[in-house]
Amino acid sequence: MQTYKDNKIKLFNSLHGQKETFTPLHEGFVGMYVCGPTVYNKVHLGNCRTFLSFDVINRYLRHLGYNVRYVRNITDAGHLLDNEEDKISRQSKLEKIEPMEIVQKYTQDFHKVLQMFNLLSPDIEPTATGHIVEQIELIKSLLSKGLAYEVNGSVYFDVNKYDAEGGNYGELSGRKIEDMIANTRDLDGQGEKKNPQDFALWKKASPEHIMRWISPWGLGFPGWHLECTVMSTKYLGDRFDIHGGGMDLKFPHHECEIAQAKGSHGEEPVKYWIHTNMLTLNGQKMSKSTGNTILPEELFSGNNNFFDKAFHPIILRFFFLQAHYRSILDISNEAVNAAEKGFYRLTTAIEKLPEIQPSEKSTFSVREWIDRCYDALNDDFNTPILIAHLFDISKVINNLILRNETLTLTDLNSLKEAVHAFFYDILGLKLLSDTLNDNNKLDNAMKVLIDLRNKARLEKDWALSDEIRDRLSEAGIILKDGKDGTTYEIE
Amino acid sequence: MQTYKDNKIKLFNSLHGQKETFTPLHEGFVGMYVCGPTVYNKVHLGNCRTFLSFDVINRYLRHLGYNVRYVRNITDAGHLLDNEEDKISRQSKLEKIEPMEIVQKYTQDFHKVLQMFNLLSPDIEPTATGHIVEQIELIKSLLSKGLAYEVNGSVYFDVNKYDAEGGNYGELSGRKIEDMIANTRDLDGQGEKKNPQDFALWKKASPEHIMRWISPWGLGFPGWHLECTVMSTKYLGDRFDIHGGGMDLKFPHHECEIAQAKGSHGEEPVKYWIHTNMLTLNGQKMSKSTGNTILPEELFSGNNNFFDKAFHPIILRFFFLQAHYRSILDISNEAVNAAEKGFYRLTTAIEKLPEIQPSEKSTFSVREWIDRCYDALNDDFNTPILIAHLFDISKVINNLILRNETLTLTDLNSLKEAVHAFFYDILGLKLLSDTLNDNNKLDNAMKVLIDLRNKARLEKDWALSDEIRDRLSEAGIILKDGKDGTTYEIE
Repeated sequence: MQTYKDNKIKLFNSLHGQKETFTPLHEGFVGMYVCGPTVYNKVHLGNCRTFLSFDVINRYLRHLGYNVRYVRNITDAGHLLDNEEDKISRQSKLEKIEPMEIVQKYTQDFHKVLQMFNLLSPDIEPTATGHIVEQIELIKSLLSKGLAYEVNGSVYFDVNKYDAEGGNYGELSGRKIEDMIANTRDLDGQGEKKNPQDFALWKKASPEHIMRWISPWGLGFPGWHLECTVMSTKYLGDRFDIHGGGMDLKFPHHECEIAQAKGSHGEEPVKYWIHTNMLTLNGQKMSKSTGNTILPEELFSGNNNFFDKAFHPIILRFFFLQAHYRSILDISNEAVNAAEKGFYRLTTAIEKLPEIQPSEKSTFSVREWIDRCYDALNDDFNTPILIAHLFDISKVINNLILRNETLTLTDLNSLKEAVHAFFYDILGLKLLSDTLNDNNKLDNAMKVLIDLRNKARLEKDWALSDEIRDRLSEAGIILKDGKDGTTYEIE
Repeated sequence: MQTYKDNKIKLFNSLHGQKETFTPLHEGFVGMYVCGPTVYNKVHLGNCRTFLSFDVINRYLRHLGYNVRYVRNITDAGHLLDNEEDKISRQSKLEKIEPMEIVQKYTQDFHKVLQMFNLLSPDIEPTATGHIVEQIELIKSLLSKGLAYEVNGSVYFDVNKYDAEGGNYGELSGRKIEDMIANTRDLDGQGEKKNPQDFALWKKASPEHIMRWISPWGLGFPGWHLECTVMSTKYLGDRFDIHGGGMDLKFPHHECEIAQAKGSHGEEPVKYWIHTNMLTLNGQKMSKSTGNTILPEELFSGNNNFFDKAFHPIILRFFFLQAHYRSILDISNEAVNAAEKGFYRLTTAIEKLPEIQPSEKSTFSVREWIDRCYDALNDDFNTPILIAHLFDISKVINNLILRNETLTLTDLNSLKEAVHAFFYDILGLKLLSDTLNDNNKLDNAMKVLIDLRNKARLEKDWALSDEIRDRLSEAGIILKDGKDGTTYEIE
């Protein structure tokens, strides 16, 4: 297998709109920050796709031997709605519990869902409320540099001043300030701001705003953009390698992060920006207001109006990875059913790997196939191409069993090792038979019992057929004779 | 079933050293704070016992219809060793990762273990680092009242001054200041303190101390006692109902909490203090240095030198609850094996409940039995007595099945409802057959198959006996014929 010394990843850097060779700031080490969820409701399926995309990047970098520090935050304060209401505060009023009870409830939901999708945990999972002191310090620094101004207990970032000093606001999103002014629909503190494109670093808390902290500017709370600048630099340094998030965060969130960081220490904070694309449902944007939306748990349980059955989280993981992270992906009943079929075709082959017998010579180059797999990953983490190579190898596996192809013991071992690395370690997939093992075994044992009983009935050995039925019934397993044969149910 | 309006809990209030009738500050509502773990290593089994004791209290209060807000913190900074080193910082040096990576790793371990013990999550789980601003504010308030003093970038609480103003330091632990001075082994900042009994509210950070924050007194970090005062009052108010923790926290931690709170707002902060007793292993205090210690995961896996096999977490939960929370409990191989036998005796009876047929009249008073169960819980949450009543009812269940006793339909339904409430809801137990359902069913199906094969062999029907063995083998279930009969193994 390869290490980061053997190859070079090319990744699409949103900052420059092009693929670039990945060279981390410190050889062998990678610092990666991904914007985590605002924990005010159940995690959105589109967000799951984003976190899953970065999970594969995290897994691949570790596979290559990088020492990765992966930081993904929890936004538990400061994320405002258009009407200036804090998302968590609003939910707390709706559910009639404390804001921090909302945070606890939905943080737990988030962790549970991501665990079902088989994501690795980040190394550090900092919270916005855990970094109020640091946020206040950053605001003080920006004020002292003249890049921010206080109005009536709130503090705003002065975009014009930042640009006048060479800041280049808009460099990530490609937006021009004039357009931003024309298109602004953000009414937040409009009367207080010098210019519409300025954004809040600190907001004065109204008396009914529960989540607030004392600051040099009075009681208030930090602006949403601020927390990510503070938490990323605290744990990864003023400059770090990768910053990721959904593409909806590119503007204004990430643009503001760059401005805050450059304003504070003068340097471009992030070497590579990575943005994931949207997930649509049946061709339409997901939206609560139109009803065109689905929760992960509704997909897992099958309890929804869009899909004809329940899907295992690993099937959905496979479905997500069959699209490139920078492409829009549409989820639909047909698409996930097709992914499921493909997944079973692939895993059926992988399960047969132990049956292959080695030969004197190899008729297939395992080495070249492995190189193709790495090439796919090194081409901006192209998981759909990698999965296509896995489908190729599943055909080879079938041919190896039929002995239409052969491999030497060394090559066979390389193949097994590589399939393990790509399927389990990097794509984070697993065989459903591993997770559902006991049920499968019970199924198999029951098939034998049902066949024995059918044979006994055919031979009119009623004593035996009754004995099988009765003893299973005592054990809480009920046989049901129907027109399509005999099935069983657990009491 | 009863509600809090039907009965009165008497609980042992450590503050007054006596049982008192529980009357919450606001009718129908209970605020409860429990000191959580310092997440610098894997959770200690003794701590699990503490959290489990409060889990039952939490569950019982909710069962009675109280609206409970249960807050249990995570200490992720400020907990110092005797040599003034922060526990998390030290571990971070040992493992060569960031302090916040230590926090993430062991917070996850803690949650996983408590979930295996079937604990309900607290409603809010605040962190020390998430409340630095509030801690600084509390210190400022104590300084302004003359109850604290700054020396060289650190701030200490002035115990003598607090006492002179009517503070009564030592009221919880019953310690006298003179004794504390004589016995002090705490060298922390001794040269800076006015008096040995004073304690740190804020410590100046040495240059190598990574976890530090800016404050009016320079770079430093909060004292450990401070965080709990701040987090409990932030989410439960200046006065709240229950504060719990292990009895080792009574002094100095909880004593200091009272002093900080009373110093700040003049009132006794906590109405009822509850302290849990120690867990010993084979009659000795658990201690890493002597090797007389065991981790929860080592008990679950059986991978240890003290116990002859693995124990299911629910068995251990049952074992813990068979002792009263205020008694020292010794864990040993015999004791847990005995608990396991008892647990199976109890659950075998509970599993038979559905088989009981109702009768015309009742020969046993379900109502009186239910009252006895509530009496046990109302007597300072006496779970061992409650479990004794459950053992009594298991004998009654057996007699009901034998029809030596009878119950009317109404009484039978009351019995089922009560057993469910006490066993599942309040004690938080569950049948292992629920958790191991599929394995049990497979066991049962396999027993039928093995018996059929044995019969075939006895009748020299080799075709049938081979067919059973071969078909199971294909399904990955291997039959092993040994001198004690036939067993099976999963491939």
